[in-house]
Amino acid sequence: MEDSVFTKIIKREVPADIVYEDEDTIAFVDIFPNNLGHTLVVPKKPARNIFDIDDETLTAVMRTVRTIAPAVRNAVGAKGLNINSNHGPEAGQVVFHFHVHLIPRFAKDEFQFFPTKEFPKESFAHVAEKIRAEIAKIT
Amino acid sequence: MEDSVFTKIIKREVPADIVYEDEDTIAFVDIFPNNLGHTLVVPKKPARNIFDIDDETLTAVMRTVRTIAPAVRNAVGAKGLNINSNHGPEAGQVVFHFHVHLIPRFAKDEFQFFPTKEFPKESFAHVAEKIRAEIAKIT
Repeated sequence: MEDSVFTKIIKREVPADIVYEDEDTIAFVDIFPNNLGHTLVVPKKPARNIFDIDDETLTAVMRTVRTIAPAVRNAVGAKGLNINSNHGPEAGQVVFHFHVHLIPRFAKDEFQFFPTKEFPKESFAHVAEKIRAEIAKIT
Repeated sequence: MEDSVFTKIIKREVPADIVYEDEDTIAFVDIFPNNLGHTLVVPKKPARNIFDIDDETLTAVMRTVRTIAPAVRNAVGAKGLNINSNHGPEAGQVVFHFHVHLIPRFAKDEFQFFPTKEFPKESFAHVAEKIRAEIAKIT
């Protein structure tokens, strides 16, 4: 498999504004930011996304996310953070090397959240039953 | 502290379409879905958000997220998932009990991603320096 741009950043073959690094993870500023201070956390052990990452690697990523979250927020004077990740091209994933976005949010900014949709109340029980059936296959 | 609605769901004081439960976490269908199959994963040990959760609880949440992610996707015939979380009112957090959204995404749906913003290239190094300085205070 060809190295992702994130693997090239880890190998220092591509420059990045790295803010944190440990044995298992690296964090750097996103060059296509949604907001000031937008930072990515990436595991050194590559996985495509949530569908193939192992628990140990995911734990390392989230430990780094938790560690740097207040620093990312405070560095830009933000009030909160969105911690988002995209899994699959249909979900907007562009780089197929697992990564988590930390997006600082301020008291007032122009982001629109995903719109909520109207579903009939009885659809919730129905979809829950389908999810439980799928979980039963894998647990 | 008054129980959150999620604590009430855990205690079975409020009904929910629960799809998964283990010792440390519970998952149920979001009643304000962004898309069909929208599911929340919540720790039983309460934390407000990423700024006060401990690593052990976060690890348990993410283990459940990883476990059920393919099931949530497959149950509704989705192609991908957004895994999002909001930390602080300015980031859209409404319930102050840590939770992760699993939002199924289909080949074509109408979601708009957060818009990217234009920042001068030199701002990246500057913001990275500020983040590194904040991380140095806490690591």
